[in-house]
Amino acid sequence: MKNFHELLSRRQLLALVGRAAGGAAMYQAMNTLGFAASSAYSGRIELDGAPKGTKILILGAGMAGLVAAYELRNAGYSVKVLEYNNRAGGRAWTIRGGDEYTELGGATQRCEFDNGLYINPGPWRIPYNHHAVLDYAKRLNVPLEPFVQVNYNAYLHSSRAFDGKPQRYRQVQTDYQGYIAELLGKAVNKSQLDAALTNEDQEMLLESLRSWGALDKDFRYVSGMASSERRGFAVGYGGGLMPLAVPSTPYKRDELINSRLWQWLSSGNQQEFQSSIFQPVGGMDRIAQALYRQVAGVVQLSAKVTKINQSERGVSVTYVNANGQGGLQTAKADWLVCTIPLSILSEIEIAVGEPMQDAIHAVPYETSVKIGLQFKRRFWEQDEHIYGGITHTDLPISTIGYPASNYGSNGKGVLLGAYVWGANAYELGALPPEQRVRVAVEQGAQIHAQYPGEFESGIAVSWSRVPFTNGCFGAWTDVARERHYKNLCQIDGRIVLAGEHASYIPAWQEGAVLSSLDAIGRLHARIRATV
Amino acid sequence: MKNFHELLSRRQLLALVGRAAGGAAMYQAMNTLGFAASSAYSGRIELDGAPKGTKILILGAGMAGLVAAYELRNAGYSVKVLEYNNRAGGRAWTIRGGDEYTELGGATQRCEFDNGLYINPGPWRIPYNHHAVLDYAKRLNVPLEPFVQVNYNAYLHSSRAFDGKPQRYRQVQTDYQGYIAELLGKAVNKSQLDAALTNEDQEMLLESLRSWGALDKDFRYVSGMASSERRGFAVGYGGGLMPLAVPSTPYKRDELINSRLWQWLSSGNQQEFQSSIFQPVGGMDRIAQALYRQVAGVVQLSAKVTKINQSERGVSVTYVNANGQGGLQTAKADWLVCTIPLSILSEIEIAVGEPMQDAIHAVPYETSVKIGLQFKRRFWEQDEHIYGGITHTDLPISTIGYPASNYGSNGKGVLLGAYVWGANAYELGALPPEQRVRVAVEQGAQIHAQYPGEFESGIAVSWSRVPFTNGCFGAWTDVARERHYKNLCQIDGRIVLAGEHASYIPAWQEGAVLSSLDAIGRLHARIRATV
Repeated sequence: MKNFHELLSRRQLLALVGRAAGGAAMYQAMNTLGFAASSAYSGRIELDGAPKGTKILILGAGMAGLVAAYELRNAGYSVKVLEYNNRAGGRAWTIRGGDEYTELGGATQRCEFDNGLYINPGPWRIPYNHHAVLDYAKRLNVPLEPFVQVNYNAYLHSSRAFDGKPQRYRQVQTDYQGYIAELLGKAVNKSQLDAALTNEDQEMLLESLRSWGALDKDFRYVSGMASSERRGFAVGYGGGLMPLAVPSTPYKRDELINSRLWQWLSSGNQQEFQSSIFQPVGGMDRIAQALYRQVAGVVQLSAKVTKINQSERGVSVTYVNANGQGGLQTAKADWLVCTIPLSILSEIEIAVGEPMQDAIHAVPYETSVKIGLQFKRRFWEQDEHIYGGITHTDLPISTIGYPASNYGSNGKGVLLGAYVWGANAYELGALPPEQRVRVAVEQGAQIHAQYPGEFESGIAVSWSRVPFTNGCFGAWTDVARERHYKNLCQIDGRIVLAGEHASYIPAWQEGAVLSSLDAIGRLHARIRATV
Repeated sequence: MKNFHELLSRRQLLALVGRAAGGAAMYQAMNTLGFAASSAYSGRIELDGAPKGTKILILGAGMAGLVAAYELRNAGYSVKVLEYNNRAGGRAWTIRGGDEYTELGGATQRCEFDNGLYINPGPWRIPYNHHAVLDYAKRLNVPLEPFVQVNYNAYLHSSRAFDGKPQRYRQVQTDYQGYIAELLGKAVNKSQLDAALTNEDQEMLLESLRSWGALDKDFRYVSGMASSERRGFAVGYGGGLMPLAVPSTPYKRDELINSRLWQWLSSGNQQEFQSSIFQPVGGMDRIAQALYRQVAGVVQLSAKVTKINQSERGVSVTYVNANGQGGLQTAKADWLVCTIPLSILSEIEIAVGEPMQDAIHAVPYETSVKIGLQFKRRFWEQDEHIYGGITHTDLPISTIGYPASNYGSNGKGVLLGAYVWGANAYELGALPPEQRVRVAVEQGAQIHAQYPGEFESGIAVSWSRVPFTNGCFGAWTDVARERHYKNLCQIDGRIVLAGEHASYIPAWQEGAVLSSLDAIGRLHARIRATV
């Protein structure tokens, strides 16, 4: 729930609006104020009346497990967490210089980045509408800074268009929008539009197309000031007696349409990538680490769960030290919140009924590869004026992400040199880590010729080889959702599952947090109903 | 010029590319690396061989004057600056709590903002392609942070559409783009397009429209997952057993087109407002103040110039203390760089020839009003999830700008409550300051119902009443440019002018800086040719 002050002032306001203008205005105002907005996060959870001495065991100290531990302990439960890794955070993970990482198969990488530089192998951005994650950041005083998704000066690149040369986003965006407006304007002007538009509507549509598409007075999209003020000039505006500005020349329409570069124009229109969008200052693990500091005393790291049992009276979990040393240990509790990814959980014996068992085995996991590359200098800023944002390419590396921090600094810099999904991720992930890095440097050099001369070191995480997830995220199909999702999320005896895999926001921290809040809310109600 | 390291590595790279692929590839690579990019800033100025003992007087310590002082002194000249205000920076100006400001007409405002809160009455953003300003920020270690221009969760508002209720940018943007794509798709599908597209091109165009417009498989723009993932859901995605997501309903096409809300969709497509875009941390005056610290010893504040004279042997400027105390004083030098705005300079006697005289009198000055409003809390973030960015409205206030710093903080906040141009600016500016503030609060309340309850204090700057500029910026017409611009910029005897008014980038700091660099470069050459 919101704090008292916020709640009061909004309620007062709504009451005021409601009295003044009736119910419809009230709903409008509610929408405006965000009450009925498109987030499933309903505010801070409040769990009152935890039965004294009730013990809850939590498996996994990623975002879902940490939120569960934090909120259940605040509610008065006796909480214990078992975590496989020797750190908390799970996929909310940041690799920094000096970190070592051993993947499935045994290959160990040591990160050689300079102090302050990092790569987030998992999530790397927080949309403005991921209200739950943002609220935990706020409550725990984790500073955020803007992430840049769309950078008009970054590149769109196809190896099969424009001679394989990268093109600036601003040029592709301006020209595509301009030609679309021009084509539609022609159709309207020649009354070729079978769309039941009145003459007045047609006039207004044309006016909008001219403004929106940067068309000239005859509704043509051409080289000139209007288009160049968006796509950029051949020679820019200057001061004093500097040379006069020279407009740039748009792409040829059909070449642009056939380039397929338009496929990336809408990425920033997706709600999850729209501005404003954020990142924690210093690395994505900052929020998870802030949660961990709140509950560190009840978290046991390096604990590998081997079996999950339950009876009518409680739950019992056996585990070993993840380093392979020592024997079986057992943790007992009254209730269990299990946030272990299904890719791992499906390989552990767990005493739940057939519906949940089936659900646990019904969800395949996607893989992904992320590669961080350190360069001697921030050439993308110094040479190419690219400050943050993303370059998209049809090469297997798919994405180059520029750091959204320390803009203009003189030191070294780390790029996200590849962010790969699908078949390419399996292929790239099958290579030894150092070869993955080499591929990223070779392919990236087709976009940034400075790569070979400036590259220093890299680190490559292939999620299908990550020991603690054995994959990237739960890739639900519609059919599997229909059949298994509810069974996965029901409380089975004394066990409830949580994590991004138990949400409709897969792969995002928000899914893990909302899943956790929903699960512990229901578990709390069940416990209160049981005693 | 770039530093040696950068220059070397880029040259090496270009040589490499040139050898490997011939001249055309060389030019392509140059483009890619930014050499032929659309900025008139050619890198750091280097003025060698200043004749010993040569004195240069500079009038005005705004960005143009400060850059001139900094660079000319670095070059070895003996420099002195006279500045009318009792502070440096000119229009690069930040008003903070405790600051007092007296406008023409005598009204004095005292800023009551809390510590750390501010308003920039003048420039408030630095585009990524304003390379000169960015370079000075870098050289002087002024930290920058991203400015947010387009915020998909901010509002577009028309008092004459949608019952006067503000609409989210994301909804207007998604629906307009969707309907445009749908309309064009229909025309293509019915072969109503008289645009010489081959069948293959038509297929590709349709595919692009579906992707770009979030159309369904039949090329319709409808309520559903595709549109809601951009415009937002009625009920958002959740975790566990939270309610299922519910798509939102697009606006009616013709209502949207007639709303004119599309007029603001392209603001972020203009190169000067494209992401990435920056602001100095703590206020726009940080860069000017950093320059001032470099040259403070040669700047005389509170010096009001009354007459500018020159002979074949030197220049002579008379001035008084701006506070009205003391008598006439005289400053003499060999050469003069005058950065006084033409609106002021046209009222000062200056010994230049008729062409420059005519030019000085040929440029009318625009006005503008900016109003900063302090509120008890950051309700736009807390209630409405708006983090930075701009709301556009057809009300006279025109713009509401949300602070692009300290996101999520619990304290008070300052909005840009109005940013007004044109007739509305004259009308609003004619009111006493406290009434301007009241108007901003009343009009803003039509968009944010929280205004009346949360408002604390405001400050309103009307540029037509600003004593040191008597206007906002030089509003050149094409005809005036054609006739007078070169005459304004030529060196007249021993006098050269600089400032945004002597540039093709009016109203922007970049214009002032480029103008200054061009002017002092030519002056230096003239001086060297003269001795």
